[in-house]
Amino acid sequence: MNLLEDKFLRIAADHAPGQEVRQSTADIKIIGGEIPGTPVDFSHGDVDAFEPTPGSLEYFNEGVQIGGKQAYTEYRGSKDIRENLALKLANFTGSNINSDQNLIITPGTQGALFLAMGSTIGRGDKVAIVAPDYFANRKLVEFFDGEVVNINMNYFETKTSSGLDLTQLEAAFKAGVKLFLFSNPNNPTGVIYSQDEIRSIAELAQQYGATVIVDQLYSRQIFDNHLYTHLCAQNLLEPENLITIMGPSKTESLSGYRLGVAFGSSKIIDRMEKLQAIVSLRAGGYSQAVLNTWFSEPEGWLSQRIQQHQAIRDDLLTKFSAAPGFNVRATEAGSYIFPKIPELNIPIHEFVKVLRLQAGVTVTPGTEFGSQFTNSIRLNFSQDHKAAVNAVDRIIKVVELYRK
Amino acid sequence: MNLLEDKFLRIAADHAPGQEVRQSTADIKIIGGEIPGTPVDFSHGDVDAFEPTPGSLEYFNEGVQIGGKQAYTEYRGSKDIRENLALKLANFTGSNINSDQNLIITPGTQGALFLAMGSTIGRGDKVAIVAPDYFANRKLVEFFDGEVVNINMNYFETKTSSGLDLTQLEAAFKAGVKLFLFSNPNNPTGVIYSQDEIRSIAELAQQYGATVIVDQLYSRQIFDNHLYTHLCAQNLLEPENLITIMGPSKTESLSGYRLGVAFGSSKIIDRMEKLQAIVSLRAGGYSQAVLNTWFSEPEGWLSQRIQQHQAIRDDLLTKFSAAPGFNVRATEAGSYIFPKIPELNIPIHEFVKVLRLQAGVTVTPGTEFGSQFTNSIRLNFSQDHKAAVNAVDRIIKVVELYRK
Repeated sequence: MNLLEDKFLRIAADHAPGQEVRQSTADIKIIGGEIPGTPVDFSHGDVDAFEPTPGSLEYFNEGVQIGGKQAYTEYRGSKDIRENLALKLANFTGSNINSDQNLIITPGTQGALFLAMGSTIGRGDKVAIVAPDYFANRKLVEFFDGEVVNINMNYFETKTSSGLDLTQLEAAFKAGVKLFLFSNPNNPTGVIYSQDEIRSIAELAQQYGATVIVDQLYSRQIFDNHLYTHLCAQNLLEPENLITIMGPSKTESLSGYRLGVAFGSSKIIDRMEKLQAIVSLRAGGYSQAVLNTWFSEPEGWLSQRIQQHQAIRDDLLTKFSAAPGFNVRATEAGSYIFPKIPELNIPIHEFVKVLRLQAGVTVTPGTEFGSQFTNSIRLNFSQDHKAAVNAVDRIIKVVELYRK
Repeated sequence: MNLLEDKFLRIAADHAPGQEVRQSTADIKIIGGEIPGTPVDFSHGDVDAFEPTPGSLEYFNEGVQIGGKQAYTEYRGSKDIRENLALKLANFTGSNINSDQNLIITPGTQGALFLAMGSTIGRGDKVAIVAPDYFANRKLVEFFDGEVVNINMNYFETKTSSGLDLTQLEAAFKAGVKLFLFSNPNNPTGVIYSQDEIRSIAELAQQYGATVIVDQLYSRQIFDNHLYTHLCAQNLLEPENLITIMGPSKTESLSGYRLGVAFGSSKIIDRMEKLQAIVSLRAGGYSQAVLNTWFSEPEGWLSQRIQQHQAIRDDLLTKFSAAPGFNVRATEAGSYIFPKIPELNIPIHEFVKVLRLQAGVTVTPGTEFGSQFTNSIRLNFSQDHKAAVNAVDRIIKVVELYRK
């Protein structure tokens, strides 16, 4: 097998969220009959249940009316929109952002991640990745010929922090890791890093001269007034060694517009722009105009959205906590919940297919977030409330049928 | 200097079209005064002069109304839209396209190029690139750690073909080149490859087991009823070794929606989808709906658009042909013209800055298309007709001021 073939095997997307329709299910055997109920796709949020920010389409249409200037922005995005964003993001995070040097608009936060990783990973570089963390992180390291160094997050062992193993992280830096990527709140667990953890990460990276990329995609959707610490505002890590990523695809349901931002290191942002020039030129020009709605939502809109998600979380937590053999930590931010399920007599990849065929429920297998999570599933609970709760009942029933 | 730093120097975007606003012009010295006139940016088409396809925005808005299903398509794009596109593209090119296996929707043709190259270039692979050809082609090879092998196109030496040096191409295949990428019509010259050339390319690639990627971005905008040959319809090259790229960003002025397609080899399309999953997930979901307008434009719309561009081309050709020391070949398709200008006493990169500052005219330096094109400039003449013609007068004047 040649190197390229091998690389593409390692970045397989067969079990990625949203790709389930392409899976073969011909040889899946089902025990018992169909379990009826409204189908729920927990692999991503339902933008029909939680609609895009009010006014977003109007901004898009205005973008089209502006015409050529909006269609052909600089590769790093429209100057006016970057200026507007830099102010809002500086205000939100408590950091300094120069719109001309320190910010790039990207096609989704996925685009930002790809560009940031492509701009910082050289062949053979060791990259520290949290287990569990967003499934693309590992694949990006593989694609850029880096080497993944796993840092465990023992999220069941504490309730006051993420449980990141800081000793492992320091050992990794000592062993030559020059890049650390993590999501905060963590995807898939919904756990927020404590202030102590964030400060330790920053101090360690500074001590060992490492670069940090922090994916803060869900940092606006915080439950129970939990404390959230922006690494970029700590003044502990050299700003040129830090990139922060955000975007309006989740809480704001704007994923269909493919928008994200990265801000921080001017050197890395410069590289990201060069890479963007050959990847897709720019984030869709007209879509960029939709960023004007971001951090400018109608009064009360965000708090209501948070409240509605918290209510769904509470109901799901209650269900999973009561189910025999399940273990779950409460989501502190964002729309993910990552229950550990009892041991099954079928592999997790087969279980998620069974669940979809038998009960109309789509979830993402834990193995997407780290190979050791063979008994976990991720749910994005940004769904119709009642449908989500009923679907969790069905998950628990199907687990009962296939338990060891 | 480390490898990554070196790589990013090699993919510099400083002189790329649209990035001129980021250039430093502090030390540019101008001879004589400003030459007044309506500013024209020839670095890309003017979508205010030639507006997006009628109905495009309405399709986008319908996409938003469809909601979640349209926002979260498979990574390779909406199944319904792929089915519709596969029929139209098969009909246009005279080839077979299975919508499920052989087609992917991408963020612009740039996205298609990036994904196709990333799916076929292994580290150290030799890749044949035409000189001149689209500026990103070389940068993509560099980014993926391939090695560029130049194949000359002697476009001034013939009027009945592109002038591609087929002897060089065969020598390259013999020397181990396994991938050949070219644009047809050629960007920047606007030359169409003859049927003999296309068939020879296919036969050589077949003989040496090479893969071909052909970028047909401008293949709908053909002047003077010139014959256009689709490589994918020749049945000379194993279909699994061929990818064809198209998109509605140019003739159809839909660049602001960031849409492209690649079709052909199922193996390469599969890889492209995996790569898309970590690059930007998918082409913008709502934007994909705009592809329904493609190849379904109102009766007469396309022929009128071609006629209008041909009229601009004719006027520009007349001007450049009459200018002392200029040499230009007539554009046969698309909106690019690539005149060779007389030798100047300033470098081409300085000249394009002077031209912009002194005469309000933006062009792309020939060196973006191959290092040897130090005395050529590219113009995208999809502009307001009168403004374009007047701007060419100013180009000729500025050249006169700086000639050797």
